[in-house]
Formats: sequence, structure tokens, C-alpha cells
Amino acid sequence: MVVKSHRKRQENQYVRSAMATRISQETESKSSAASHQIPNESSPKSKKVMVIGGDGYCGWATALHLSNKGYDVAIVDSLVRRLFDQQLGIDSLTPISSIQNRLRRWKSISGKTIQLYIGDICDFEFLSEVFQSFEPDSVVHFGEQRSAPYSMIDRSRAVFTQHNNVIGTLNVLFAIKEFGEECHLVKLGTMGEYGTPNIDIEEGYITITHNGRTDTLPYPKQASSFYHLSKVHDSHNIAFTCKAWGIRATDLNQGVVYGVRTDETEMHEELCNRFDYDGVFGTALNRFCVQAAVGHPLTVYGKGGQTRGYLDIRDTVQCVELAIANPAKPGEFRVFNQFTEQFSVNNLAGLVTKAGKKLGLDVQTISVPNPRVEAEEHYYNAKHTKLIELGLRPHLLSDSLLDSLLNFAIKFKDRVDTAQIMPNVSWKKIGVKPRTVIV
Amino acid sequence: MVVKSHRKRQENQYVRSAMATRISQETESKSSAASHQIPNESSPKSKKVMVIGGDGYCGWATALHLSNKGYDVAIVDSLVRRLFDQQLGIDSLTPISSIQNRLRRWKSISGKTIQLYIGDICDFEFLSEVFQSFEPDSVVHFGEQRSAPYSMIDRSRAVFTQHNNVIGTLNVLFAIKEFGEECHLVKLGTMGEYGTPNIDIEEGYITITHNGRTDTLPYPKQASSFYHLSKVHDSHNIAFTCKAWGIRATDLNQGVVYGVRTDETEMHEELCNRFDYDGVFGTALNRFCVQAAVGHPLTVYGKGGQTRGYLDIRDTVQCVELAIANPAKPGEFRVFNQFTEQFSVNNLAGLVTKAGKKLGLDVQTISVPNPRVEAEEHYYNAKHTKLIELGLRPHLLSDSLLDSLLNFAIKFKDRVDTAQIMPNVSWKKIGVKPRTVIV
Repeated sequence: MVVKSHRKRQENQYVRSAMATRISQETESKSSAASHQIPNESSPKSKKVMVIGGDGYCGWATALHLSNKGYDVAIVDSLVRRLFDQQLGIDSLTPISSIQNRLRRWKSISGKTIQLYIGDICDFEFLSEVFQSFEPDSVVHFGEQRSAPYSMIDRSRAVFTQHNNVIGTLNVLFAIKEFGEECHLVKLGTMGEYGTPNIDIEEGYITITHNGRTDTLPYPKQASSFYHLSKVHDSHNIAFTCKAWGIRATDLNQGVVYGVRTDETEMHEELCNRFDYDGVFGTALNRFCVQAAVGHPLTVYGKGGQTRGYLDIRDTVQCVELAIANPAKPGEFRVFNQFTEQFSVNNLAGLVTKAGKKLGLDVQTISVPNPRVEAEEHYYNAKHTKLIELGLRPHLLSDSLLDSLLNFAIKFKDRVDTAQIMPNVSWKKIGVKPRTVIV
Repeated sequence: MVVKSHRKRQENQYVRSAMATRISQETESKSSAASHQIPNESSPKSKKVMVIGGDGYCGWATALHLSNKGYDVAIVDSLVRRLFDQQLGIDSLTPISSIQNRLRRWKSISGKTIQLYIGDICDFEFLSEVFQSFEPDSVVHFGEQRSAPYSMIDRSRAVFTQHNNVIGTLNVLFAIKEFGEECHLVKLGTMGEYGTPNIDIEEGYITITHNGRTDTLPYPKQASSFYHLSKVHDSHNIAFTCKAWGIRATDLNQGVVYGVRTDETEMHEELCNRFDYDGVFGTALNRFCVQAAVGHPLTVYGKGGQTRGYLDIRDTVQCVELAIANPAKPGEFRVFNQFTEQFSVNNLAGLVTKAGKKLGLDVQTISVPNPRVEAEEHYYNAKHTKLIELGLRPHLLSDSLLDSLLNFAIKFKDRVDTAQIMPNVSWKKIGVKPRTVIV
């Protein structure tokens, strides 16, 4: 009895602090002028969307997009991604506002409130309170440590990555089972779960005929970092709960995302998204644009034949919206490959070099020793038709997008710290001693 | 500097306590008569074997077997399996001695010392001290939470299972990389990783021809509990480290183990192995024998067509020895399916009924609602030739083994608590509230 009433008090505390956050935003917004208000659209069917990791690169763009489209959005985020920047001595190319200022600005511009719950989903007591308070129809789960190099810095970060990602997702699955069985989970996976097999990559499943019998089975996984492995583990855990509990889930195996602007983030500089170019969180195309802008050679890892799927961040937000608007059925574990085009690293370097020339930049390319363990020349052909069938209209990588990305990098080039550019995490040299990466 | 010297002191503490354990055993053994001493065989090539989880059912039998065969064995165990018994109010059918008494008795009988390190491999500081102190040539890793029902009791036990198993194995991989790159990891997986596909199950890998191209890929996994999933996660993590770091590893995907006696455990009652018949840790055949002995109907879950691979515990110890004596190559991730015969649950019930009749037992069978989510009628054909090729000589399930198992159960039938027999963990009803399973 004593234990129970103590627990009750704790619950009330959580509710109060969540409420307090919401109320202060609403009060704040009343005093702001709604200058760029977007007309209300008719309410979508799956109205309430919880965006876990909504302060991150893909999460922030998605939260704004869904809010703009009329969904009732709540962001759940521990803000640990901002802490990683501090700990590694790195920073976004773009100055980004605090999540509180971002949400106040969004309210003042759009008239729409995005609720904010700050906490760690690995803390189940926090997560369960948030679920019962917000009662989401859909959960979009971006809330994972998402850098392969980060997961390969040292043992403690490898362990952190797998613990954080796997347990966080388990908690989300339990919260859905317990507090909202109809809730649709839209989980961000990665194309990296598949590795680089010598056969075509299908969307989640493959039909195999073997010794005269046939079955459709999960596509074999060959991930190549502790981060990518954490997503493989998630996929298996989610598939099981769909079967055992009837959870409805969509696993978005996303390719490498590039770009920074979406319709909503460009409405005001306080809504600006982050743009990572460092050796730990930066990804290929974005990093190349920054390198070109500051006159740093494009750093191709090894032979540069590594081929992956890529997509514009404007397509990330579109894909998530499509998944929410067309939910999986109860018990269905649906897998979509979320990318629009395939490029090798050498392809990208060539495109950036060409685009740079048009802007008068002298772009050099160097090969640096590959810090990763991966095939540098390989077959790669991954299917990606399911999101197109749902209505995705891709923003393909074009000269004009590259021009604008390069100009964007040039605009912020005074903020570039070239010490952050080179890779400094080695897949082979990871050890057990805690390591300070960037000094 | 201050931090470093503090760390140094901690290290020394660990070494001292490990040393103290060893010394006390050695002193003890000098005063005991070596009554059944086994002749020394020529020293095996991979001499020093660390058995993680060496106080458990398979681990204890394996540690004794390897010690008997002339390997220098150290047991690493947190003894948490004994705590689970306390927490769930269950007990082994057989009375088992403390690990300390077991090891003293083994020393007195065989003249051989098995070293003992008591601690949790999720604590990397402990594990790294043990590695540096013992310097194993092989690590046999049984040290995981190994019950599917346990992992499905409630959220906290599901999370515990995945955290404990996945992080423990990550730590072992890091310890090998850092302190003994040549060390061969022999890891216990489970046949349950494969699920029940409608095609033949291969040993770890399958060659797939798809759209005119061919590759050999990891066999697709379809695990059906948080426990089985934890082993799937382990397999993926280990495969990656073999590729990235050159770890040599053998994954033993073991079937359901039955039996209790091995050559070594029957030398003295203080060496007796545990025998689980409860609804959480008991497995099919062992539990049926206890049910028959006490006149409890055999409890077939659902239709009873569930087919799995089975093996005698005397083959478990043989398989592990074969894996150690024929280690994987550096960078090789080798998978063996470790079982000798396939049975459906109905097959087993039939065999126990027949054997019971010979002993004058009236054996009834009832179907109970299946607490699990699994196919109850399905195709099943799993390959298991690789260990045979290495020299495994199977103990197939025979009338005489069943007789002796039944007589064994009859011998201890006064210790049976029938309240522990029925399944009481439901795959569908698992929730977020902590649950007391057996009252």
C-alpha cells in the first residue's frame, strides 16, 4: 500500500511537469503574433502523433511537417543529441535554437502547438506517463543514437548505443501494448541493416525456394556497426511483437538523408534544422558540400565504390506522413525501403565537384584510408517501390538542389571547424578504454 | 592521475579477491583424499577454458567434462540462476550443492582444480580483470538468462533478459579483442533463433539464388520470445566482430537438452546437476518425466505438433569439447546446429507414456491452452551434420535412457512441488507491471 501510494505521487509529478511545459508554451504563444499562419486543413484520420526524437535532424523536420499538415503533434526527446555535440566538441553547421524557442516560434508563425515532453524513453515510468497523458494514434520513433561512428568510438559508447536503442524500442512496444493497442508504430530503421549482399535487396522480406519448398522470410541482415546492428535487433523485436501481440508497425529502412531545408524549417531562422558535417554525425553528401565550401578536399573513404540509397530530407517527411496516413494492419510488420536514388561515394564526389565548378569553387577529392570495415566495390540493387505506390513524389538529387546546398554551406562557412571534418573513429581500433574523440 | 591511481587500486582488489578464492580451494583440496582420481591425459592444445555460466545446467556439466579431459578450467558465474529460483519460488528436482562445495568435491575426487570467479560479466571491470588474470585460450559462454517463459513474465524481465544477454556478450567480445585476440569464443545460441520456416533449416547460412544472382547469407531469423530474440541479437553482434576484428567464434545453436547425468556428475552426489521441471525453466522431456513420476498428466501445449531438435546433455558436453578442440579460424563465424534428433511434443508424450507403462506408471496426457505464440503444426527439417563431421557420437533417445530418467524422477518425487508444473506465463498477457509468478 505504501509503495503504491508513493508510486501514485511520482506519477502525479510527471503529469504535472508535462502539463507545466505545455501550459507555459500556450501562455507564451498567446502573446506572440501569428504572422505566417497556415490555413487549417481538415483533420487527418490518425490525428495524434508522438514524435520520439523530435528535436533531431529528421525528427524536427518531421514534427513540423506533420504539425503543418494538421496532425496534433507531441515531441518526446531527452535532448541527448545536443549533449553529444558538447561531449565530442562538435557543432551543427547551422545555428539551432533551443527546442523551447523552436516550439514558441512555430506557435507564433503557424498558430499550432506542438507539445513537448522532455525525458528518456529508456525510463519506462516517464514513457508510460507520456503515453497516458498524450494518447497517441501514431508513434514515429526517431529516438535512437543514430551514428555508426559514434557507436564505434569505444566500448562504453557501443554498449550505450545498443542498450539505448534496443531498450528504448522495447519500452515503446510495451507502452503501445499496455496503453494504446491500436496505436501505429512508425519506426526508423536503416538500409544499412541489409549490408551489401550480392543479390537484389527486397523490402524487408524475401521469398526463398530451397530444396523444393518455398517460404517468404525476413530478408537476411548483415549490419556493419554496433549502431546498424541495434536497428537489426529492433527489427526482430518489433516483428515478434506484431506476431505475438498484434502490434501494427511500419519499419522505414531509411537511406542516407541529405539537404536541410523543408517547407516549414525555412519559414523562420529559429526553425532552422541542424546540419552535421563532422566525422561522427555528418553523412556523405552533406559533408562533401561543406568540404567544397571551405576548400577542403572531399574525403572519399577507400576506393569510393561504396553504394547506398539516398534521399532528400523533404522526402523523409513525406514518407513518414504517408506511413501514418496509411497505417499497417493489426499484427502487420511492414517494411519499406525509404530512399529514392542510389549513388556510390565516387558518384557523389563527382556531382559536388561539377556543381562546385559552376560556383567558381576549386573542388579536389582525396582518398583517405577507410575507417570502416566495408566492401569498397560491390553489387548493390535495392528495391524501393512501396512508398512510391503509396504516393511518394521524390525530390531527386538535381543540379539546383546541389547549388542550393553548396550555397547554404558557403553562407555558413565561417562557422566551419575544419578539425571536425576528418574521420577519426576506426572500426578496427575501437577499444575498451573511454576515448575523447575530438580535442 | 588521481583517477588512474584509484582505478589501479580497484584492479588490485579484484585480482586479490579472485586469488583468494583460488587459494582457499587449493588449500582445502590438500586435506581431501583424491579417491576417484582420473588419469591425466596429454594436455589438449587449447588448454585454458573459461566457462561463463559454469554453475548452470549445461555449464556445470561442461566445466566438469572439460576439467576431466585435462583442460585447465575456470568458471565465471554470478550465480544469478540460483537467485531466480528464490525469486520465483521454484527449485531443482535434485538437491544441488553450493558452487564452492561442488568445486571442493571435484578437487577431492579428481585432483583437478577448477578456478572460480564470482561476478557479473555485464560489469566490464570485473570481466576484464578475470580475462587478464586467467588468460583463456577458449571462452565457452553459457552465461545468459536462458528461459523463454522467464523473458515473457513482465516488462522488466524482458528488458533484463535482452540487456543481460546482449551486453554480457558484447563485453565478452570486447574482452577478447582487448586481452586475447587469439581466444576462441564458443557461444551457446539456440535452434529457436530460426523459428519454424516452411523450408529446410541450414546451419547458420543459406545460399540464395534471386533474380539470377547468388549469394550465401545468414539464415533468416524468426525468434519467438524475448529470450530467443536476445540470442538472435548476439549472433548478429558476434558475426560483425568476426568480420571487423577477426574474432574467431563458434555459435552452437543448441536444441532442447534432456537428461541429467554425465560421467562426471555421477561420481558423487555433491556433483549432481540441477534438473528443472517447473513451468519457467523446465523443458519438455525432463518435465514430462517428472509429471509421469508423480502421476501428474503430461501437459501438452495446444495441439502438440510443435517439433524441435533435442539432445542428451552428454552430447552437449561432447559438442562443446569438439568445438574447442577444432577452433574456428581468425575472422570465422561458424554456426553449428547442436542437436541429434527431432521430436514433436506429441512424440515425446508418447515415448514417456510407453516407458512409464513398463515401470507400472499410469501416464495420462492432457492438452493445455498454449501459453506461447507458435505454430502447433508445421514443417520442420533442420540440418545438423557439422558436429557429426567433427566426430560427435550421439546418445540417441532410447528406452533405457527414458527408463533411467523416469527412475531418476521417481527417486526424487518427494521433492516435487506440483504447483510449479503448470505453465503460468502467457506470451499474450505479459504486461508492464512487475509480476510475482509463482505463489
